[in-house]
Amino acid sequence: MSINFKKGLAEFLGTFVLVLFGTGVAVMSGGDRLLTALTFGLTVVLMAFAVGHMSGGHFNPAVTFTMFLKKKLSALELGVYVLGQVLGAVLASGLLVVFLGSNAALGANTVSAALPQDGFVELLFGGLVELLLTFFFMLVILGVTKSEKTQPFAGLVIGLSLIAIILFGFDLTGVGVNPARSLSPALFQGGVALEQVWVFILFPLLGSFLAAHVSNQLE
Amino acid sequence: MSINFKKGLAEFLGTFVLVLFGTGVAVMSGGDRLLTALTFGLTVVLMAFAVGHMSGGHFNPAVTFTMFLKKKLSALELGVYVLGQVLGAVLASGLLVVFLGSNAALGANTVSAALPQDGFVELLFGGLVELLLTFFFMLVILGVTKSEKTQPFAGLVIGLSLIAIILFGFDLTGVGVNPARSLSPALFQGGVALEQVWVFILFPLLGSFLAAHVSNQLE
Amino acid sequence: MSINFKKGLAEFLGTFVLVLFGTGVAVMSGGDRLLTALTFGLTVVLMAFAVGHMSGGHFNPAVTFTMFLKKKLSALELGVYVLGQVLGAVLASGLLVVFLGSNAALGANTVSAALPQDGFVELLFGGLVELLLTFFFMLVILGVTKSEKTQPFAGLVIGLSLIAIILFGFDLTGVGVNPARSLSPALFQGGVALEQVWVFILFPLLGSFLAAHVSNQLE
Amino acid sequence: MSINFKKGLAEFLGTFVLVLFGTGVAVMSGGDRLLTALTFGLTVVLMAFAVGHMSGGHFNPAVTFTMFLKKKLSALELGVYVLGQVLGAVLASGLLVVFLGSNAALGANTVSAALPQDGFVELLFGGLVELLLTFFFMLVILGVTKSEKTQPFAGLVIGLSLIAIILFGFDLTGVGVNPARSLSPALFQGGVALEQVWVFILFPLLGSFLAAHVSNQLE
Repeated sequence: MSINFKKGLAEFLGTFVLVLFGTGVAVMSGGDRLLTALTFGLTVVLMAFAVGHMSGGHFNPAVTFTMFLKKKLSALELGVYVLGQVLGAVLASGLLVVFLGSNAALGANTVSAALPQDGFVELLFGGLVELLLTFFFMLVILGVTKSEKTQPFAGLVIGLSLIAIILFGFDLTGVGVNPARSLSPALFQGGVALEQVWVFILFPLLGSFLAAHVSNQLE
Repeated sequence: MSINFKKGLAEFLGTFVLVLFGTGVAVMSGGDRLLTALTFGLTVVLMAFAVGHMSGGHFNPAVTFTMFLKKKLSALELGVYVLGQVLGAVLASGLLVVFLGSNAALGANTVSAALPQDGFVELLFGGLVELLLTFFFMLVILGVTKSEKTQPFAGLVIGLSLIAIILFGFDLTGVGVNPARSLSPALFQGGVALEQVWVFILFPLLGSFLAAHVSNQLE
Repeated sequence: MSINFKKGLAEFLGTFVLVLFGTGVAVMSGGDRLLTALTFGLTVVLMAFAVGHMSGGHFNPAVTFTMFLKKKLSALELGVYVLGQVLGAVLASGLLVVFLGSNAALGANTVSAALPQDGFVELLFGGLVELLLTFFFMLVILGVTKSEKTQPFAGLVIGLSLIAIILFGFDLTGVGVNPARSLSPALFQGGVALEQVWVFILFPLLGSFLAAHVSNQLE
Repeated sequence: MSINFKKGLAEFLGTFVLVLFGTGVAVMSGGDRLLTALTFGLTVVLMAFAVGHMSGGHFNPAVTFTMFLKKKLSALELGVYVLGQVLGAVLASGLLVVFLGSNAALGANTVSAALPQDGFVELLFGGLVELLLTFFFMLVILGVTKSEKTQPFAGLVIGLSLIAIILFGFDLTGVGVNPARSLSPALFQGGVALEQVWVFILFPLLGSFLAAHVSNQLE
C-alpha cells in the first residue's frame, strides 16, 4: 500500500470510531455531560495508540490544518488526511442512523440558546467558544508531541485534555473543536445543525491558525 | 513450575478478577453504564500489572487468538491460555452466584432489543457491533505493545480504551469483546443469554481475525 | 533526622491523608460508590508521589507486611511503618469527628448484611472478600514496582487499581484491604464496626501472606 | 519576546483556562462535586502540557510562592508569574459573567456553614482545611518534579492529585488552594465571598511556606 493511502486509512478509522463512539454515547445517554466527555476523550486514547503510529493520529481537520501550517504535512497530505477524516465521520453518523433507527438526534453541534444575545451575535459567541477551545486543544497537542520525553504518552494526555474541554463547553456549543465531527451529524440531521455548521468549521480552523502562529512565536 | 503452567495460571487469575469485578459491578450497580465501564477498564489495569509480566496479560480468548494468528503464541500456548481464561471466568461467575445469592442476573451479554430489526437479523446487528468493537480493541492492543516506548504502560492504555468501548456498546450488546467473559455468565444464567452466546464467541473471534490480518498489511 | 524517623513520618502523612480524604468522602457523599472509590484511588496517587520517595509509599500495614515477608524491610522498619500508619489513620478519623461534628459515621468497614448466611459464616464471607481483594492488591503492587520500566509510574497504576477494587467490594465489606484504614474509624465509632474490626485486620494480613508466597513461586 | 514575558504569558494562559473551565463547570453543573473536581484536575493536565514547558506550569500563586521559597525563582519572576496568574483569573471570571449572563454565582470559595462553630472560629476551621490541602498539594508538586524519571508526566500526576483534593474539600471550603482562583470570582461576586477571600489567600500561602520548609528538612 502507498504510504499516503495508509495514512488516509488511519485517519478514516480513527475519525470513524471517534464520531461513532462520541456522538453515539451523547445520543444514547440522553446528552449526559460526563459520559459524553469521557467517551470522546478515552476514544482518542484508544485510536491514538491503535493507528496513531501510522498517521500521527489527528482524527480532526483542525489538527491537520495546524500541522500543515507548522509545515509538518504537505498540501497533498492535508488533502488525504481531511478526505479520510470526513469519510470516516460520515460513515459513523450513517451507521448511527441505522443503529438508533432515526436521524433526528445524532449528536450534532449547535450554539446553545443559553448564550447571551440572539441571532448572529449568539452565533459569534458560540464561534468564539469554539475558537478558544480549539486554540487550547491545539496548544496541548503541539506541546506534548514536541518533546521526546512526553511524545510516547501524548495520546493519553490529549485524550484526558479533551475530557476537560468537553466538560466545560458542553452547555455552550456541545463542543465541536473538530470540523469533521461537527459536519457529519449535521449532514444527516439537517435543520439548525446544518444552518450553523459553518460556525463549527470556520472558528475551529481560526483557532488552529492562531495556535500555529502563537506557538511559532513562543518556541 | 513449568513455564506454561505459570502462563495458564496468570491468565486464570486475570480473567477470574476481570469477570468477578466487571460483571459483579454490572449486577450490583443495577446495570450502571459508567460504573461497569470503569470497573472493567481499571481491572484490566490492575491485572495487567499484577500478572501481565508472566503471560502478557490477555485475559481474553480474542486477544490470545489474535496473538496466535500473529505467530506470537504456539498452538499449545493458545490451548493453555484459553483453558486458564475459561476456568477463571467460570469460577468468577460461580462465586458471584454465591455472593449474590442468585443466578438470575450475572452480567451476561445479550443483543439489545433496541437494535433495529428482529430475530436473526437483530443477532447479526449485535454480532456486527461485537466484531467492530473487538477489531478496534485488538488494534489498540497490537499498537501499544509494538513499540518499546509505549509497551511499559500498555496495560494503562488498554484499560482506558476498554472504558471507551464499553461506554459505547453498553446499550447495544452489553459489550462482550471477550468470549470467556460472555460464556461464563451465560452458562449459569441460561435462557436468552445461553441461546445467544454463539454471537459473543463467533463475532469477537472474527474481529480478531480481521485485526490480525489488517495489522499485518499495515506494518 | 534519622532515616527511620523520616520513613515513619512519610507513612504517617500518607496514611493520614488517605484515611482523611477516603473515609471523609465516603461519609460526606452519603456512601457514594464512585466518589469514594475515586477519592481513595487518586489519594494514593497524590501521596505516593508526595512522600513515596521517602518510604516507598505503603500507607497500609498489609503492604508493609508483604514487603517484610519479601525481605525488603527489617523488623524494626516494620514496626516504624505500622506505628506511623496507625497514628496517621487515628489522627485522620479524629479530625473527621471534629469536621463532621459526630462520631456516628466515619466510613468504618463492616461486613454487608447482603452477603449470604448469618453470624459467623457471614463474617467469614466478608473475610474471604477482604483476603481476595488484598491478595490481588498486593500482586499489582509487587508487579508494578518490580521492573525499572514501570516503577516510576507505579503510584499511578496502584491508585487506579485501588479504584477497581473499591468499585467491586463496596457493597460487600466497604473495602478495607488496609488494617490501619479499618481500625481507626472503628475505634471512634465503636459498635458493630469495632466488633468486626478483627476481620479487617486478620484477613488482609492473610492476603498479604498469600501474595508474598505466591509471588515468590512465580518469579 | 523576553523570556520573562513568555513565562508571564504562559502563566496568564494557564490560569485563565483553569479558572474559566473549573469555576465555569462548578457553576454550570449546579455545584456537582465530581464534575467540578474532574474539570479542575484535567484542565491542569491540559495546560501543563500546553504551556508548562515555558514557565513550569504553576497557574497558582501558592505554587509560585513555594518555588520562590525553594529558590527556584527570583523575586522578579515571582512578580511576573503572580501578575500573569491574577490577570488570567480575572479575565476568566469576567468572561464567565458574560457567558452566564450574571455575576451572582461564579464558583467563588466560601467557608462552609457545615463546619463546626460560628464566626471567626469557623473561618479558622476553613483556613486550616485550605492550609492542609495546599500543603499536601505542594508536597506532590515538589515530589513528582524532583526526579527526572517522573518529571515528564508530572502534569498528569498533579492533575489527578488535584481531583482527590477537590473531591475531599468540596463540601468544606469549595477548595481554593490557589489564591488567584479564589480572588477573581470573589472580586466579581462580592458579598461573603469577598469578605472571606483573605482566608483563601493567607492560608494557602501558609501551606506553601510549611511545605517549602518541611520538604527542605526531608530531602
